[in-house]
Amino acid sequence: MEKTRIGIVGYGNLGRGVEASITQNEDLELVAAVSRRKDIEVITPNIPVYTVHEAKNLVGKVDVLMLCGGSATDLPVQSPLFAENFCIVDSFDNHSKINHHFKKVDEVAKKHNTTAVISVGWDPGMFSVNRLYSNCILPKGQNYTFWGKGISQGHSDAIRRVEGVADARQYTVPVDDAMEAVRSGKNPSLTTRDKHLRDCYVVAKEGYDKEKIKQEIINMPAYFADYNTTVTFITHEELKEKHSGMPHGGFVIRSGDTQNAKHIVEYSIKLDSNPEFTASVMTAYARAAHKLYKEGKYGCFTAFDIPPAMLSPKTPEEMRAEML
Amino acid sequence: MEKTRIGIVGYGNLGRGVEASITQNEDLELVAAVSRRKDIEVITPNIPVYTVHEAKNLVGKVDVLMLCGGSATDLPVQSPLFAENFCIVDSFDNHSKINHHFKKVDEVAKKHNTTAVISVGWDPGMFSVNRLYSNCILPKGQNYTFWGKGISQGHSDAIRRVEGVADARQYTVPVDDAMEAVRSGKNPSLTTRDKHLRDCYVVAKEGYDKEKIKQEIINMPAYFADYNTTVTFITHEELKEKHSGMPHGGFVIRSGDTQNAKHIVEYSIKLDSNPEFTASVMTAYARAAHKLYKEGKYGCFTAFDIPPAMLSPKTPEEMRAEML
Repeated sequence: MEKTRIGIVGYGNLGRGVEASITQNEDLELVAAVSRRKDIEVITPNIPVYTVHEAKNLVGKVDVLMLCGGSATDLPVQSPLFAENFCIVDSFDNHSKINHHFKKVDEVAKKHNTTAVISVGWDPGMFSVNRLYSNCILPKGQNYTFWGKGISQGHSDAIRRVEGVADARQYTVPVDDAMEAVRSGKNPSLTTRDKHLRDCYVVAKEGYDKEKIKQEIINMPAYFADYNTTVTFITHEELKEKHSGMPHGGFVIRSGDTQNAKHIVEYSIKLDSNPEFTASVMTAYARAAHKLYKEGKYGCFTAFDIPPAMLSPKTPEEMRAEML
Repeated sequence: MEKTRIGIVGYGNLGRGVEASITQNEDLELVAAVSRRKDIEVITPNIPVYTVHEAKNLVGKVDVLMLCGGSATDLPVQSPLFAENFCIVDSFDNHSKINHHFKKVDEVAKKHNTTAVISVGWDPGMFSVNRLYSNCILPKGQNYTFWGKGISQGHSDAIRRVEGVADARQYTVPVDDAMEAVRSGKNPSLTTRDKHLRDCYVVAKEGYDKEKIKQEIINMPAYFADYNTTVTFITHEELKEKHSGMPHGGFVIRSGDTQNAKHIVEYSIKLDSNPEFTASVMTAYARAAHKLYKEGKYGCFTAFDIPPAMLSPKTPEEMRAEML
């Protein structure tokens, strides 16, 4: 078997998740890592490390580059840049800018005959695919997406910027009553506050007023003001012991009507590790990216454009026999 | 807008469900019905009815024929037959024979340059797609499918064949404890009996021994002997009043491990009407079949081979903006 050769760009939680997930797929192999720093230690033995500037030397040596940077500043630059010379996969997750990102990457990929798969993870990614399927099947209906229970990195960071905060973790928690109302087929109109709680665990610095910190958090515009927010002060040790994981999850529910009937379609995930799951989705789409490329299908693709079978290493007959 | 012209073959519950679902999709229109009997009354006004033998007169008048017959005897004959002259969609659901059915239809469709989409509904169909996605994302793991709570037509029919039974309905019921064990990530080994109960409502004929009927049901090989089965005798009126719907549903759960974490992916549906939902899935794939045909993609396809975007009437930009 000729293996698909993968390069990882960015060796943080997501990059290491991709590395781990490659070991679960016999038809894929890690051949290189690309990082800002040359001195990173890649867990897989004998994997050469390239800087971003040296990465062009990888042309012909990797089949797919998996871009594991952030959506705020890394991917808007890296995805179009690397798409000039490589097939790429990214998990760009800034929903409001996906069409813009798509257009930029698509232009480059079409011009240079490469294949790019963007915005694959769970949301965007698997959640999107399930929204699309259920919207097409039940055109008359209502979509609901709930996130959590899980750590929101962005909200945790926002709390850490409050004066007097040493460290913090924020859990996004879907509201049970809201989910039950949706599942019952009532098609409720739900406000931001109705759908999610924000549960914060905060380590305060010595000598700061906890009540003042709390008020600053719960009234923070955009992040917390529109939610019911709870703030619990704990010690560094407790934070480390009880809140150092990266769990996440969520629910996509479509409530729809056909002529004489109501239907509920629900997709949910419960993840012990958000980056490891996102990485696993990206890895399956790396296989698809390489297949598309070999078929001469160049340009930018999202999960919407890719047949599910392309994610699998199995033959069509095997898939139909085992999973259809 | 040029509409996709649909013909329905078989005007039972599923066919009427397809008819209803077409009215929810502005880009589709019903133009003909094909039935064994000429004297059926189609609900949509002014729809001509053709016999199976007359159907060849529909060439050039319909874009997609939706085959709404049964998998036991209708579709094995009709799908290859109609694929000679038409793009078709069927919901062939005899899992063990799908590869055989695929091969027969594929040969005909490739020879005659038509496009066929087979086995679309919820299982096979949406359940299959979710099994495939989650298997590709989490290659190290375990699949579980639970059906119900819902009416099983096959099992209800089996009960009706027991001597002394006037009418019957059988509900397949997933066992809560088994589902909870799966959701907890324990990867349990579950027997047939562990996973589902069979809940039977039976109207006995006058003068027959109910205990004998019950014993015959619960010990019936293949259908009931391997399950915990409950039998409740009721009147004709009660059966009609409380058990005349066609609800169904089910759950596809993948429990998988990545390097340091466990993940649960769950897809579930709760349907008030099994045929109306199945019909709605078929209708979305009729749109896809016509798109594939217009792109010159001939042969047989399953849900595995079709990009989710092909099911939608929206533009790629709209889909990315609204659902990705």
